[in-house]
Amino acid sequence: MSRFFSDKYRKLTPYTPGEQPRDASYIKLNTNENPFPPSEKAIRAGEKALRSLMLYSDPACTLMVRALAETCHVGEDQVICVNGSDEILNFAFMAFCDEAHPAVFPDVTYGFYPVFAKLNRVPYTEIPLQEDLSIRVSDYYETGKTIFLANPNAPTGIALPLSEVEEIIRRNPDNVVVIDEAYVDFGAESAVSLVDRYENLLVVQTFSKSRSLAGGRLGYGIGSASLIRDLNTIRFSTNPYNVNTVTMAAGAGALADPEYTAKNCEYIQTVRAYTTEKLRDLGFTIPESSANFIFASHPDIDGEALYRELKKRGILIRHFSVERIRNWNRITIGKKEDMDTLIRESTDILGGQGDGSPVRMGR
Amino acid sequence: MSRFFSDKYRKLTPYTPGEQPRDASYIKLNTNENPFPPSEKAIRAGEKALRSLMLYSDPACTLMVRALAETCHVGEDQVICVNGSDEILNFAFMAFCDEAHPAVFPDVTYGFYPVFAKLNRVPYTEIPLQEDLSIRVSDYYETGKTIFLANPNAPTGIALPLSEVEEIIRRNPDNVVVIDEAYVDFGAESAVSLVDRYENLLVVQTFSKSRSLAGGRLGYGIGSASLIRDLNTIRFSTNPYNVNTVTMAAGAGALADPEYTAKNCEYIQTVRAYTTEKLRDLGFTIPESSANFIFASHPDIDGEALYRELKKRGILIRHFSVERIRNWNRITIGKKEDMDTLIRESTDILGGQGDGSPVRMGR
Repeated sequence: MSRFFSDKYRKLTPYTPGEQPRDASYIKLNTNENPFPPSEKAIRAGEKALRSLMLYSDPACTLMVRALAETCHVGEDQVICVNGSDEILNFAFMAFCDEAHPAVFPDVTYGFYPVFAKLNRVPYTEIPLQEDLSIRVSDYYETGKTIFLANPNAPTGIALPLSEVEEIIRRNPDNVVVIDEAYVDFGAESAVSLVDRYENLLVVQTFSKSRSLAGGRLGYGIGSASLIRDLNTIRFSTNPYNVNTVTMAAGAGALADPEYTAKNCEYIQTVRAYTTEKLRDLGFTIPESSANFIFASHPDIDGEALYRELKKRGILIRHFSVERIRNWNRITIGKKEDMDTLIRESTDILGGQGDGSPVRMGR
Repeated sequence: MSRFFSDKYRKLTPYTPGEQPRDASYIKLNTNENPFPPSEKAIRAGEKALRSLMLYSDPACTLMVRALAETCHVGEDQVICVNGSDEILNFAFMAFCDEAHPAVFPDVTYGFYPVFAKLNRVPYTEIPLQEDLSIRVSDYYETGKTIFLANPNAPTGIALPLSEVEEIIRRNPDNVVVIDEAYVDFGAESAVSLVDRYENLLVVQTFSKSRSLAGGRLGYGIGSASLIRDLNTIRFSTNPYNVNTVTMAAGAGALADPEYTAKNCEYIQTVRAYTTEKLRDLGFTIPESSANFIFASHPDIDGEALYRELKKRGILIRHFSVERIRNWNRITIGKKEDMDTLIRESTDILGGQGDGSPVRMGR
């Protein structure tokens, strides 16, 4: 830390992203990436856009906003585009939270929420998930707080039905409810259909997961026109050219290829069911996931030990140091052959290798 | 504004970017874009990167940081990459300004500085430029404030010599001095050579102008390792994957083609000298510019009137509504044929069209 760093931020603990090894030797199941490349339509549109990069990107994101409005059946004034959905989550903490409007979210959820709260010096409450790691919906009634809910939740993968999400929105009419739907395309119900009925609803989605554009950085928000206007006030006061030209073009290409997205999502759901069954057979506890990952714990091996053992064998999964989930791991659903390798190596680790190495560990 | 918008931001007036018309019918001399496309090396690297977009971008920006460190002759821990240089300017306002460390900058400079100050609720002082629109260097000695200086300054185009920049840095040892060098490659001296000597110096540069990547969004900062660490604390608390994969690849490609950049910068400087001479012949006052734009005022026509007249004729230049410079326009240096059109149309406007239209206006 330099002696010039403002007191405001001296206690910040930044978010820790999952490992992004630069060599390609790992089977990468740690950051919930899609195993399939972007649609050819996205790639071709991106290629074309590269030649016009001497011009600034469109700060209004006109074409992308229009395409999303059509896809989501909302008005163009109900859409905002951002440089990855992390950006709009931060904007929402800025715009809709303060001393008088503290934030609330589950104790086990996307690890960036408490970082955003601290960054913006917003008081926040973490509501514990139930014993089975599910959200007790009634905990979020009449909170008097700005609510952040990932649906499906991460890293558990558990989704709330739309009716329960709606009940939370309905029972907090004076507070913004942010539904973070990064993983919604893998089996959950989107709240986008509710935005015209609830002026306090902001739905956040991304091109990173189902549309294979994580490296392009394209997120968006759907909400009432007045919420979107507020978020644009923040956006135009921080970084009006936040979304680059190539990514906007690639995003429009991806949006124009819904069959490809649907096919990949279906594949991932099939492999998820398969992987879940095989790992449960091995003794893993895995809540029913509606995302492109599963959350797994085993009675015979500590979460960090499993992570380390698999890494030695060339497989990256995600382990969190948070106390309540330190015996769990989040495992991205990749291609079937990669999941078969994961299953085989996990079987081997749990059975011991016969070389006397002490891989079994109690908690 | 929604009823949910935090009081903190209700009075924000966002930055107004220059017009970005979606149709290509204008000669666009309003946002200081390079008239030449990106280097073929940048385009080819970007094309290749498109196929790996299902993976997240590298949050450490390893390859880009390494390439910039080599180019700038600094350590890798002295470089930070951002989503366009606006992002790092905002980070600097966050990290190095607060009630105890107010900001200071000229009254006529990059219009985003006061927006960032207000966004971050940082008190700030604007020091008037001298009558000839130049900076009086001694105004910035012992300020006790965090200094933001664009060099060359925008929209005037006037550059300070490095010795004077150094004197400002030397005389503010307890405050960060941010030198915003967006336009430095068009004829000014960079302060990058000073970063090892002054721990309070942050130099901000961009790929938008000299390297023709405005639409890709790639900026960077060079400073002491401890300043860069602070800025990374902010970056990893807001948007760790802020720079997308294609842009990083394209940026590395552009950096690997310095001959192309140098050739384009030389061309622009030649056309700048030519345009300046021709417009001065028409009676325009134009300070000596070291940027890829010129700042021009004419005794016989109001700045806004000239802007409007040229727009009618298919030429976009930038007019600002700020009182002190409302009789001035900022004109980007494009290709010679476009500047010839500008000169011809300006001649016509100043001479009248012979159709009786009242284009001459006093101030």
